[in-house]
Amino acid sequence: MTSAAQIRPLSVDECMDRLELSAYGRVAFVVDGEPDILPVNYRFHGGAVVFRTGRGRLLDLVHHAAAAFEIDGVTEEGAWSVVVRGKAEEAADPADLEALRRLPLEPWAQGERDHYMRILPRVITGRWVPGPLTPRE
Amino acid sequence: MTSAAQIRPLSVDECMDRLELSAYGRVAFVVDGEPDILPVNYRFHGGAVVFRTGRGRLLDLVHHAAAAFEIDGVTEEGAWSVVVRGKAEEAADPADLEALRRLPLEPWAQGERDHYMRILPRVITGRWVPGPLTPRE
Repeated sequence: MTSAAQIRPLSVDECMDRLELSAYGRVAFVVDGEPDILPVNYRFHGGAVVFRTGRGRLLDLVHHAAAAFEIDGVTEEGAWSVVVRGKAEEAADPADLEALRRLPLEPWAQGERDHYMRILPRVITGRWVPGPLTPRE
Repeated sequence: MTSAAQIRPLSVDECMDRLELSAYGRVAFVVDGEPDILPVNYRFHGGAVVFRTGRGRLLDLVHHAAAAFEIDGVTEEGAWSVVVRGKAEEAADPADLEALRRLPLEPWAQGERDHYMRILPRVITGRWVPGPLTPRE
């Protein structure tokens, strides 16, 4: 049995670095009091998680609503995750939109995804877990 | 621009197969009306998503509360995701617990994770997205 002390929190800077380097994560949001979750391609731009969406659940729900966002990864040395919690909003300012449209950001599920959404972080946390990620027999 | 028609929903059977084969996912839950998300190791056992947790947020929150659970993956041909939504509960029945303790299920973040949680699916959905997952320049 390994001890809890082996888990290391990531600093906010470390979390931001990982947010810059990754391009794929999951958005959690609330519908009628119940949680839902969807994968998205994203870019960390201007201190916010930016992703595109269409006219579906995600657009309705993250319009100035609370959202959480997660990325994770595995290396030979261990596993890590970063969670961002904050408010989501649709980018509506024309100058903002022009900048966002220049990002290399294809929606995960292609199709009509003309809305640029932003999650503005209120809390950023991360952790590093040494050792193999996969369950040991 | 690729069309939305390329996205293919996964059947419930296909989703269940992927839930059987994977061992790592993310739980989304609601705290004070706001979404949160945490990675977990899990097993799909007896038709439920089973994971272990300790005394933290996750335990408090998924005790007979709504939860969502997501797994995803990438192959050379495309990407997929499966989302389970349902009720979470702690496994308390001694016979159940004995079976769950035999699962090859190490908690993601090691330490005191003596509680076995189950998410009982109400809705299982999945989708397959052909082509590269990573954003194209």
